[in-house]
Amino acid sequence: MTKGRLEAFSDGVIAIIITIMVLELAVPHEAELSALVPLIPIFLSYVLSFVNVGIYWNNHHHMLNIVQHVDGRVLWANIHLLFWLSLVPFTTAWMGENDFSTWPVAIYGVVLAFAGVAYYILARSLIAVNGRDSALAAAVGRDRKGLLSIAIYAAAIPLAFVNAWIACALYVVVAVMWLIPDRRIEKQLNQ
Amino acid sequence: MTKGRLEAFSDGVIAIIITIMVLELAVPHEAELSALVPLIPIFLSYVLSFVNVGIYWNNHHHMLNIVQHVDGRVLWANIHLLFWLSLVPFTTAWMGENDFSTWPVAIYGVVLAFAGVAYYILARSLIAVNGRDSALAAAVGRDRKGLLSIAIYAAAIPLAFVNAWIACALYVVVAVMWLIPDRRIEKQLNQ
Amino acid sequence: MTKGRLEAFSDGVIAIIITIMVLELAVPHEAELSALVPLIPIFLSYVLSFVNVGIYWNNHHHMLNIVQHVDGRVLWANIHLLFWLSLVPFTTAWMGENDFSTWPVAIYGVVLAFAGVAYYILARSLIAVNGRDSALAAAVGRDRKGLLSIAIYAAAIPLAFVNAWIACALYVVVAVMWLIPDRRIEKQLNQ
Amino acid sequence: MTKGRLEAFSDGVIAIIITIMVLELAVPHEAELSALVPLIPIFLSYVLSFVNVGIYWNNHHHMLNIVQHVDGRVLWANIHLLFWLSLVPFTTAWMGENDFSTWPVAIYGVVLAFAGVAYYILARSLIAVNGRDSALAAAVGRDRKGLLSIAIYAAAIPLAFVNAWIACALYVVVAVMWLIPDRRIEKQLNQ
Repeated sequence: MTKGRLEAFSDGVIAIIITIMVLELAVPHEAELSALVPLIPIFLSYVLSFVNVGIYWNNHHHMLNIVQHVDGRVLWANIHLLFWLSLVPFTTAWMGENDFSTWPVAIYGVVLAFAGVAYYILARSLIAVNGRDSALAAAVGRDRKGLLSIAIYAAAIPLAFVNAWIACALYVVVAVMWLIPDRRIEKQLNQ
Repeated sequence: MTKGRLEAFSDGVIAIIITIMVLELAVPHEAELSALVPLIPIFLSYVLSFVNVGIYWNNHHHMLNIVQHVDGRVLWANIHLLFWLSLVPFTTAWMGENDFSTWPVAIYGVVLAFAGVAYYILARSLIAVNGRDSALAAAVGRDRKGLLSIAIYAAAIPLAFVNAWIACALYVVVAVMWLIPDRRIEKQLNQ
Repeated sequence: MTKGRLEAFSDGVIAIIITIMVLELAVPHEAELSALVPLIPIFLSYVLSFVNVGIYWNNHHHMLNIVQHVDGRVLWANIHLLFWLSLVPFTTAWMGENDFSTWPVAIYGVVLAFAGVAYYILARSLIAVNGRDSALAAAVGRDRKGLLSIAIYAAAIPLAFVNAWIACALYVVVAVMWLIPDRRIEKQLNQ
Repeated sequence: MTKGRLEAFSDGVIAIIITIMVLELAVPHEAELSALVPLIPIFLSYVLSFVNVGIYWNNHHHMLNIVQHVDGRVLWANIHLLFWLSLVPFTTAWMGENDFSTWPVAIYGVVLAFAGVAYYILARSLIAVNGRDSALAAAVGRDRKGLLSIAIYAAAIPLAFVNAWIACALYVVVAVMWLIPDRRIEKQLNQ
């Protein structure tokens, strides 16, 4: 079984997810700059989710790039990941339209945590098919970075009830952790 | 004629179908968890349809994977399948927004039954092009599993008028039947 | 320059066009079968456009399949075709929501006629790159079928002002002409 | 790392961007031709953005066509470009629905200018990976045309506050500059 269509289908779904989020930026009826002010929180939540979904696409790309084989279990693990990612536009909009209130921020973290778990399952499924001594197994290692991300999301969810901005800051930390990888940290995490 | 573009076009259409369904989850104006409660039936219908469309993509992937040739008739049989699948977001939303009432649940089954018939026609068209002794013909066999799915949908439609939940339970049965295939049953069905 | 991305981009745009049309089928708030009755004209216009866009995808697939080369002019001829096709969801919805009234039906024909002209230009651009003795030039010939379609659309537009159903009947005639090709007629038209 | 998925993902995102813009053309409830009149500015802004996004796809296609290698930095430079392009539907709609008023026209230019900068960064990232003596480096040269476009956008933004139509005229100039390239100018610009 070839991985080409799995990649193509994932590209399609992720491309749509990343693009329909922008539809939440409702076009103002006034032509003044001030009409954009109420859109700022929606825009910020859009940027955060655009980066997060971009990270998933990027990692998905890297991971599939170094595997040779996929099977039925991998296909479903991949669809499972796409399911959680498909909920990101909803939670993004809910968070943005309610100025980063507690519950929307917490649920945003729940969806990202499940997406992280789904990604972890997908990585394990791919290693199961391609062998414990495959290039992927070596690259992913114990996947400390992925597990750390899930742990931070899991911590952010209850912390959102203390202060929603703490949770938001943690979401940004995870995104930055993937965006600007310190090679030394990366090596350590992926041992 | 190569099958690459048929796969790419189908991937695109199915990716859009599976993703636009999430747009039915209208973003609540309140930031409370209780604001998500009215969305539960819509979410459940989304999950059911996500899984169903995922199954179609998965089976489509497997089927196209083992054929060599496509012709004009196959292209149209494929577009016919995509037509019925394109109606899934509508019936999903109608069913979810009306708390699984009788008519929406019945029409949901009608669309899935027609999608099943369209898939059956596509399989026959592919066998016609690739030969009765092709790998596909051997794999699909008499396609008892596909025919059984259509039969269950056909039974579910009138049963929706007895109790909509019976029909819903049958839809779940079909989905589970494809999701968790007992290899023995699968072999028997595909003889 | 390879044709792969031109095909992929066209597949993406056409997949989206064919799928977003279904969003015009507004989900009724009532759960009765009667709630679907007002949607019948919208559904019929959807079916007509689904078939028409499907025909374009099919023909596009066949045409690109037998050419080797594309150039900058072809890329723009292709984007020009996609532009007219991108207007189909709008004209489809306008026609369906106004019960096939005169003006929407006429404008529907205008867009289809321009799409036909754009397809003709694309075919000529491809022949210009691939040579007058290429497989495409032989297959397309003088493209009588394409020119006949444009002529029928051009006739349908004024006839819509006599009776909108005459124009609609002509749109169906063109679609059927492409869907069920009489091989003899096809050969004669493509001489 | 192969460039195939970067192309496929970009094709998907650009295809969606170019197609969802048409959803801003709200379907009128009346069936008269006059009902289309209020849509004219929205339609014109749609045409302008369709051409602009088409130009980006076209240039993206050409640029990726002549490179061999991509790396993680290129993937992110590409996602950065897609981010700015994803804002085009919003600014297009805001400009069209407010009859090309000052602020929407200026912000439209801001987004296009940033897209131009992002494209420039992507080109530099690709040259960094493929070498200063690669085919891309030779073709792009100092990229005078790209830099000129950014300069025109940068000039158009303040000029929008003098007269919005001056800015619009400059946007059209840039589009035409890419659409109808004078080969001599092109050679000079790309020295």
